[in-house]
Amino acid sequence: MTDCPSTNLLTVDEALVQLQQAACQRVPHIEEIALTEALGRVLAQDIVATIDVPPQANSAMDGYALNIEHSQPENIYCVSQRIAAGSQPVALQQGTVARIFTGAVIPQGANAVVMQENCQLLADGRVQILQWPKEQENIRPQGQDIQQGQCILQQGTKLTPAALGLLATIGLGGVNVYQRLKVMYFATGNELVEANQALAVGQIYNSNGVLLHNLLQQAGFVAINGGVIVDNFDDTVNALRLAAQQADVVMTTGGVSVGEEDHVKAALAQIGHLDLWKIAIKPGKPLAFGAIAQTPFIGLPGNPQSVFVTFSILARVFLAYRQGQRGDVIGKAIPVKCDFSVHKVQSRREYVRVRLVTTEQGLVLQKHNNQSSGVLSSAVWADGFALIEAHQRVNQGDLVPFLPF
Amino acid sequence: MTDCPSTNLLTVDEALVQLQQAACQRVPHIEEIALTEALGRVLAQDIVATIDVPPQANSAMDGYALNIEHSQPENIYCVSQRIAAGSQPVALQQGTVARIFTGAVIPQGANAVVMQENCQLLADGRVQILQWPKEQENIRPQGQDIQQGQCILQQGTKLTPAALGLLATIGLGGVNVYQRLKVMYFATGNELVEANQALAVGQIYNSNGVLLHNLLQQAGFVAINGGVIVDNFDDTVNALRLAAQQADVVMTTGGVSVGEEDHVKAALAQIGHLDLWKIAIKPGKPLAFGAIAQTPFIGLPGNPQSVFVTFSILARVFLAYRQGQRGDVIGKAIPVKCDFSVHKVQSRREYVRVRLVTTEQGLVLQKHNNQSSGVLSSAVWADGFALIEAHQRVNQGDLVPFLPF
Repeated sequence: MTDCPSTNLLTVDEALVQLQQAACQRVPHIEEIALTEALGRVLAQDIVATIDVPPQANSAMDGYALNIEHSQPENIYCVSQRIAAGSQPVALQQGTVARIFTGAVIPQGANAVVMQENCQLLADGRVQILQWPKEQENIRPQGQDIQQGQCILQQGTKLTPAALGLLATIGLGGVNVYQRLKVMYFATGNELVEANQALAVGQIYNSNGVLLHNLLQQAGFVAINGGVIVDNFDDTVNALRLAAQQADVVMTTGGVSVGEEDHVKAALAQIGHLDLWKIAIKPGKPLAFGAIAQTPFIGLPGNPQSVFVTFSILARVFLAYRQGQRGDVIGKAIPVKCDFSVHKVQSRREYVRVRLVTTEQGLVLQKHNNQSSGVLSSAVWADGFALIEAHQRVNQGDLVPFLPF
Repeated sequence: MTDCPSTNLLTVDEALVQLQQAACQRVPHIEEIALTEALGRVLAQDIVATIDVPPQANSAMDGYALNIEHSQPENIYCVSQRIAAGSQPVALQQGTVARIFTGAVIPQGANAVVMQENCQLLADGRVQILQWPKEQENIRPQGQDIQQGQCILQQGTKLTPAALGLLATIGLGGVNVYQRLKVMYFATGNELVEANQALAVGQIYNSNGVLLHNLLQQAGFVAINGGVIVDNFDDTVNALRLAAQQADVVMTTGGVSVGEEDHVKAALAQIGHLDLWKIAIKPGKPLAFGAIAQTPFIGLPGNPQSVFVTFSILARVFLAYRQGQRGDVIGKAIPVKCDFSVHKVQSRREYVRVRLVTTEQGLVLQKHNNQSSGVLSSAVWADGFALIEAHQRVNQGDLVPFLPF
């Protein structure tokens, strides 16, 4: 954690490096859970295969197993055994074929499988091969997918359905993962009213709480609603101190500017420490990062769009690393043609809410007509962010990096 | 539901139209839930805004509200009121300014806000405006985000964090959603063994069950594990009949080919009906679609990759529509340069597992070296599918559609 003078904006990439380093100062606790409960969890161990997959060579088709070197007149063969999936074959009797089904073990001595569509079953029970196979045709070799001793998944991997299916192929029923991070969040401001109550003049509903709750859940964390902190120093101190005892990370939205109505900064100065980062990100810019005793604190801006962007691009990466994840959290941006232009250059990288639209020019990125940072509608409408770099001009038709939500 | 002769392959798009139509034959049940529990759920009603958002014009900055037509000598003003966020202002006294904070209501008679960085607070408590604002500067107009009476979200929308945040801005605490679809799934085959047991020759672990469970969960359905059905007609009939009474949809992996060891087709013929669709999809091709009494049945292929692809591209769309979702379920494929070539054309659209890799040529799609349909490793390694159309040749550097997972 470094204090940044407000004249120097930190780039998003510089901020991410610092957030990742700070996150790694703690090693999360580990628990064992079933593979059917582990979606989105983070692997706490390297997984080394204890078997080959498949464990034996098996058939990719329903058909007949044979040895291509033992040809018979007119390619007519007796069927010497029947091998269903799950059963154990005997060695192939020379000069015969074995009836075999998809997934069944190839008998010793066979070196190809003819699919049944290329065979003729004769009236006397023998089989005529109509199309001669190549060696190893329709045979899946032992260990084709996984070799015993191979590391198939690394510690720090976020578990997808495919990864969990892969763990099941080597016979695991459960796996060690890191405990889910408990994140307690607050919205700040006297103007905030909870749902279903009448609004007085000057009041608005607390939408940042619901937004942040669902962003946290979607990213795989335990979201704990701390409610609203009113603009009052003592209430702010008490709420944050209590939260730091209950949760792994404390977050707020709003209240971290230098204004005299913003008490989060003063409260943190008393019960912990806080750095105000000026980051070259739009919407967003100020991000407060600090700690209350040993509990990390992240203060997001107060505007819903700024919450959405700074959570998605910055806070989420810190939280994922804090929960033990490693590697790329956000995914790669893909160059896509844009259907808009940017002539007024900015000093910050802008995350523009855009939608993929098919036009006569092919697939293009369209920009929502309201990119105001107070507005969530554009994030609902959009498919992802277009990244417009600081000092970059963009003409219609240019390729810009697109980051799907 | 149409029976397709095996000589005519159904395209993926044709199959999707039929699946969507079949899914819409049922109207799902509705329940009301809190916005903090509604992530990924499907909206069961149009949402019409009952208020403007923001409800009144408010300040985008900490600063001073004034009327630009009432200028004073040297732009020095008395501060006639202080308006914090959440408080109700009085009308602006002519020839004065009002101290105002971000989010606070603009007082009647003011038509601009000067940010505090452009003001000088004088020793006598008055304020000098150093940079004259334009009309409406730093004012967020009433209804900028949402106008009363506007439909902000439509029935059939899958609820994202941003959509839920948007619902909170109009004061909703809960919302009507469709009940989650209960999907009971089985793996079929005598060769399958559950986790943590020793393998005999010919046996493999049941990985399709874990894969399908997590694919269902990730897509927002309730996954119910029915276990393994052995290759036996009576067991198959009994398991499927019971499942149809307990679940909204029944699914199997494997067992729907024409082979004599595959009993799902015969069982369905006795207790319901089944069509075997030949779809121009690789990996995949056969998809069994039918019903047991009123309960839809989907039979996926037996290979893990085929399960992964046919679920992601076909079954998921049926289930989402059955749960009330409308619109695009899968997302749009984005053209990306590929780092491989396809010279052997195919009769089916192939969903190649690819990874986004940054090279000297920019971002390209790399192909996993093992695209065998028996293998899950490539789906774990990959970032998404590259779509290679039937009869299409691809040269290195060509753009191909990329569908992120």
